[in-house]
Amino acid sequence: MIAKAVILSTGDELVTGKVIDTNSAAIADQLSLLGLEIAAILKIGDNREKLVWALRRGNELGELIIGTGGLGPTADDLTAEVIAEFLGCRLKRNEKVAGLLRRRFKSRGLPWTANNLKQALFPEKSKIIPNALGTAPGFRVSIGRGKTLVWLSGVPQEMVAMLKANVIPWIKKERREAPGISSCTFKIFGLTESNLDDILKPIPLTRHVALSFRAHYPDLSLRLTVRGYRGRESLFRRLKSRIRRLLGAHIYGEGDLTLEEIVGRLLLKKKLTLALAESCTGGYISHRITRVAGSSVYFKYAAVTYSNESKIDSLGVKPATLERYGAVSRETAVEMSQGIRVRAGTDIGLSVTGIAGPTGGSPNKPVGTVWISIAQPTKSAARMFRFQGQRERVIRGTSQAALHWLRTTLL
Amino acid sequence: MIAKAVILSTGDELVTGKVIDTNSAAIADQLSLLGLEIAAILKIGDNREKLVWALRRGNELGELIIGTGGLGPTADDLTAEVIAEFLGCRLKRNEKVAGLLRRRFKSRGLPWTANNLKQALFPEKSKIIPNALGTAPGFRVSIGRGKTLVWLSGVPQEMVAMLKANVIPWIKKERREAPGISSCTFKIFGLTESNLDDILKPIPLTRHVALSFRAHYPDLSLRLTVRGYRGRESLFRRLKSRIRRLLGAHIYGEGDLTLEEIVGRLLLKKKLTLALAESCTGGYISHRITRVAGSSVYFKYAAVTYSNESKIDSLGVKPATLERYGAVSRETAVEMSQGIRVRAGTDIGLSVTGIAGPTGGSPNKPVGTVWISIAQPTKSAARMFRFQGQRERVIRGTSQAALHWLRTTLL
Repeated sequence: MIAKAVILSTGDELVTGKVIDTNSAAIADQLSLLGLEIAAILKIGDNREKLVWALRRGNELGELIIGTGGLGPTADDLTAEVIAEFLGCRLKRNEKVAGLLRRRFKSRGLPWTANNLKQALFPEKSKIIPNALGTAPGFRVSIGRGKTLVWLSGVPQEMVAMLKANVIPWIKKERREAPGISSCTFKIFGLTESNLDDILKPIPLTRHVALSFRAHYPDLSLRLTVRGYRGRESLFRRLKSRIRRLLGAHIYGEGDLTLEEIVGRLLLKKKLTLALAESCTGGYISHRITRVAGSSVYFKYAAVTYSNESKIDSLGVKPATLERYGAVSRETAVEMSQGIRVRAGTDIGLSVTGIAGPTGGSPNKPVGTVWISIAQPTKSAARMFRFQGQRERVIRGTSQAALHWLRTTLL
Repeated sequence: MIAKAVILSTGDELVTGKVIDTNSAAIADQLSLLGLEIAAILKIGDNREKLVWALRRGNELGELIIGTGGLGPTADDLTAEVIAEFLGCRLKRNEKVAGLLRRRFKSRGLPWTANNLKQALFPEKSKIIPNALGTAPGFRVSIGRGKTLVWLSGVPQEMVAMLKANVIPWIKKERREAPGISSCTFKIFGLTESNLDDILKPIPLTRHVALSFRAHYPDLSLRLTVRGYRGRESLFRRLKSRIRRLLGAHIYGEGDLTLEEIVGRLLLKKKLTLALAESCTGGYISHRITRVAGSSVYFKYAAVTYSNESKIDSLGVKPATLERYGAVSRETAVEMSQGIRVRAGTDIGLSVTGIAGPTGGSPNKPVGTVWISIAQPTKSAARMFRFQGQRERVIRGTSQAALHWLRTTLL
């Protein structure tokens, strides 16, 4: 039974940082969904000794080794050869694959060169994994003690297609039992990782239950996973509702929806329209709202008012307000949200004005000070926030706070 | 002397495929620039045994082990503890770091929880690597036989800042000799990777000379590296000017400046001001412009006009123009750029109107059709573009084309 897998990625471009390896994450994702544990991911250059080293390490850690790269026709494509050596077997030409390669070149009018036949050589007793999108097929071969080695093309689209069409169905068949995993993701607002850890202390972590956090500022997600346990589904349901109770309003969503998608669905459902007046966020909130397909139904207009003149001219902020309270103030924020709502003729106006930095701060209003205001037909409100960190972080944090407040206003 | 490095990335999210690991590529990139060889990149979950395994393997392959992740305050943050165990030493609290943490929490008005002190525990004899952008500092510790272990925060921005401010200067000092490497980066517009590959065929690649591409849509960079060769500097200069000649106007910058920074510097230098009217890009161009610190000097205003009404009301586009030519047309684009320029009172008005998809396309104007217009006091121009791919790709591609055209207009 396959329980643990090791993923190998090969290619000089991966270890010089020229290319970000997405293959290993894509494979890890698919295998995790099947309930496999990924013991390790190893990335190495196109080098004989390193590949042998990685194969040994894979063999030591997992029952399934799944690798990518180095199957092409050129001199640095060493994989099949090195694996045959590692297994102590011969390379054997697969005539079906050789014929296919020749026909493919002919049909595309490409000149045939003998080195292409290299792609038809596989370690003896391999099962071929067809590559519908490219020339180099992959293979699957037993490496003893019930362990299996799978090798796929390193080209991401080809790899994913081969994985889905061939490898996943094979793993499912091998693991006769149900994969035995339940998991869900909570999206979190207004807590740090360590807050979250503290609040979740009462959740008993056993070898069946795992909680993991993912923080990509300003996003914070929590994942609950319950594995291979007899009463798994009911335990999973109990833990899920316990987490919901513990975190309460800090949970703004479950699953993979973004905050801007959640806000968009609420606006759609309530048949409300939105306009934005952004100062320090410079269009970033508008970008988040509009990257959701179909947002034009509820989103009408944003004014990015980076100067005082534009706040006056296009939002109707009073010069006296700017003079007396400053551009970063409750009063200006409210006039901005009301102004954009009336001028755009929408149900809701949301405004943001603050100091993103690195300059522009003062003792009273340090960098990171932001006022957000929401105007509706019969009421307006404003709140002050203080964000830490550099410009980009203030911008992102502000956008999250604004969208989150908008979400709670819509509920 | 440090010659080979091993990179370790830790985190459950990396081995379940939930997050694509960019840290290891960023580290590999920086270390390669210094001439170090990356022996392997190892990724493992937050697990004691796996971390020990990875530390052993790192120790076996490299003189420098550089790892990320697991330094936070929560229960699954095991790194410092496991490393101390691996080294056979104690964990020791660094009082300076502890004090800093307490002050940071206090100044932000966050509730202090004792588990935060975990971030002040380091293996004995470690040198602290400050983390200017986050709470968890890293550390550097000798692991015997002239080998060194460096551990950094797993949060990408924090990691990069720590790497550049602390680790790179330390490595340079350690490697007393000159690294023997010359390299530069060209930023490319209007070519695909395979175009680039074709055009650069005349550049002779020897074991001293490497060309590498990095594509992160819509960004495309080309890097020239010349290594350890006696006449290195003069060969480097010759190749550099040869590449400049081959690529001509496709090069929009050299070094690490972004396109929005380059445009910003040109506007500053020419003392010109800018306003934007965005439709399909929904504020993304405005966001790119304003994420550059100091952009308020030249950037005044953007109108994100997602509805026809807002195009009419806030830009002065004629209803007849919209009716006759449609919102995605040369005529509308020009009225938008002229309208925003006049209303914002800036030197330049730039507008964008198009179909980002997935719906809204027609046989004449398929998804990806975009009109861009630039208005100046005495002239206006408009151009049509066709972008391929999904919504986010159309938005990004449009922003790049608009900023690039603005750049060439300013030259």
